[in-house]
Amino acid sequence: MQIQGKQYRSIWREDNVVKIIDQTKLPFEFSVETLKDLEQACHAISSMQVRGAPLIGATAAYGIALALVHSSDDATLCHASKQLLSTRPTAVNLQWALEYCQRRLLKLTPSERPKFAWQLAEEICEQDILTNQSIGNHGLTLIESIAKQQPDQAFNILTHCNAGALATVDWGTALAPIYTAHNKGLAIHVWVDETRPRNQGASLTAWELGQHGVPHTLISDNSGGHLMQQGKVDLCLVGSDRTTATGDVCNKIGTYLKALAAKDNQIPFYACVPSSTIDWTMQNGLQEIPIEERDSRELTHINGVDSHGKLQTIRITPENCPAANHAFDVTPARLVSGIITEHGTFGANDLHQLKQQLPHDRN
Amino acid sequence: MQIQGKQYRSIWREDNVVKIIDQTKLPFEFSVETLKDLEQACHAISSMQVRGAPLIGATAAYGIALALVHSSDDATLCHASKQLLSTRPTAVNLQWALEYCQRRLLKLTPSERPKFAWQLAEEICEQDILTNQSIGNHGLTLIESIAKQQPDQAFNILTHCNAGALATVDWGTALAPIYTAHNKGLAIHVWVDETRPRNQGASLTAWELGQHGVPHTLISDNSGGHLMQQGKVDLCLVGSDRTTATGDVCNKIGTYLKALAAKDNQIPFYACVPSSTIDWTMQNGLQEIPIEERDSRELTHINGVDSHGKLQTIRITPENCPAANHAFDVTPARLVSGIITEHGTFGANDLHQLKQQLPHDRN
Repeated sequence: MQIQGKQYRSIWREDNVVKIIDQTKLPFEFSVETLKDLEQACHAISSMQVRGAPLIGATAAYGIALALVHSSDDATLCHASKQLLSTRPTAVNLQWALEYCQRRLLKLTPSERPKFAWQLAEEICEQDILTNQSIGNHGLTLIESIAKQQPDQAFNILTHCNAGALATVDWGTALAPIYTAHNKGLAIHVWVDETRPRNQGASLTAWELGQHGVPHTLISDNSGGHLMQQGKVDLCLVGSDRTTATGDVCNKIGTYLKALAAKDNQIPFYACVPSSTIDWTMQNGLQEIPIEERDSRELTHINGVDSHGKLQTIRITPENCPAANHAFDVTPARLVSGIITEHGTFGANDLHQLKQQLPHDRN
Repeated sequence: MQIQGKQYRSIWREDNVVKIIDQTKLPFEFSVETLKDLEQACHAISSMQVRGAPLIGATAAYGIALALVHSSDDATLCHASKQLLSTRPTAVNLQWALEYCQRRLLKLTPSERPKFAWQLAEEICEQDILTNQSIGNHGLTLIESIAKQQPDQAFNILTHCNAGALATVDWGTALAPIYTAHNKGLAIHVWVDETRPRNQGASLTAWELGQHGVPHTLISDNSGGHLMQQGKVDLCLVGSDRTTATGDVCNKIGTYLKALAAKDNQIPFYACVPSSTIDWTMQNGLQEIPIEERDSRELTHINGVDSHGKLQTIRITPENCPAANHAFDVTPARLVSGIITEHGTFGANDLHQLKQQLPHDRN
């Protein structure tokens, strides 16, 4: 992605340290932090300086490499893996990346491990970028096929939350088709859902689209339905934290409401999903996917900068207001026009066709 | 309504002054302001110390009475009416209340006017209260009929924005059935939509329900669909700024998304509507009702109190982030289970039955 006119990834290696963009400071300050050891890698994940499933996985892999710089015996490796896993216990990519690194590294002698740990982390990053570029290309095909019905107009895409470059190593999932189309010169305009209560749309998606120069407009989460009724949305693209074998899409709370409005207005609604986030064991998203309920303070309090540019946390509700903060919802497959993966675009009811293409052990 | 254990209206007369609750300070401070003259009444409306169509109308009527205290000739009356009308040019109730007062007062001699102006304002307030109480009673019948299917459980009502006592002289429209049921001892629990971007749910509805002792939980606007999928909503009650003869309901932005979710989950969705807000000239809400687009700063900036209790305005987006702020949307009649009015509950497609009951000139 472009930031201040330069090309960036969300995470990268420089010699024996790791660099990240501190996302807790966005959109108010662009700050690159250095991770020098395991503890700093753990802190980056747990404090959400890095977030987004693919980026958490990449950070964990780099965390292993950092841990092995000075000592690389089995105990150090297992301890590092355990520490990293405890930072965000529910993140599937975190667990996958750690198991992958640990399994590969334990096969080597301790002296071989440090160099190979860096290679593994880099490999995970490169794989994430390739996956997202492929999603971007398949999404571009979709955009071009819809846009062809309305030449000479800006193409309006609505997105929810941040499934962008900042949630991954680069490109993002839902934003990958948008960057790909924009880079190709298509006139893309993005409606950015604010995404209460954590405001990832207002703080991260609006920021990264702005930095990259993609035309966009922030809207309240309440607005998408009205815009669709008025013919101002041509396509909805969202990410997914987990997708069932039957095409039910679990994503940030509010996604389901947008899918309902898209259906009601005959607007295509696609989820952009790396195949690794499809849970082939699940058949019914509404019944089987547990929905995280987070601290109600995320709803009652909000961060921003005052007129002096100083960061402030304010309360926007009556004192001690009871509040509930469900983090995700499930959009049933019947509302999803299709699933865009790195292996192509599939109907939400046709994911079995994708499964047949995947190797038995993706790892 | 109950505030700090005492019975209050949103506006009332004391001798020759008018008292209001300053709603710009809620939910952080409960402050009663005194309006002593026309200018202060105009300021109360334009600065949104009072808001909500019925309350604006009542404030305008009191503003006329305040204007006539010292001089009550035709010129003073017409000047006052003109000044008040210019405070919120699009408010239908404001225009109606002013025309009603002016027409009645011009028939009298100047010396008769001051006393009668106070009577007219009081009459408008009493009529608003009677209308809302009647909506409350018809809504109670509906709640009891649904609740009877699930005895021994709390009855969960979802509401959007603030159509409460604070938007009217007392009781509110959408909240009138809730207060009526709660006062009768029914176990009511209210899901309060935050209602971005002006947060009327988080700041006003949560506050007035809390003051009155009605159990409630604040949620993000994104959450209602998920709660409905999980069987945690028994009824949706919303207000309406304007309803067409065909039952299309124009209300705060985001109402349409909740109506879609209610339909998808077979949950009854009712609008609570004084018959005076039905626009009998309109047949197609989506095509005919103009949707106000407000200052984008309402979305990019937000008010609250910091940890020292000090009021702060903060920016929550990147600097100069493009943002669009559509204030209302239209829920098509096909998604509305019914319209609760002071004359009873009607199917959204059956409003012609209500029209037959109304006098030809409601004024």
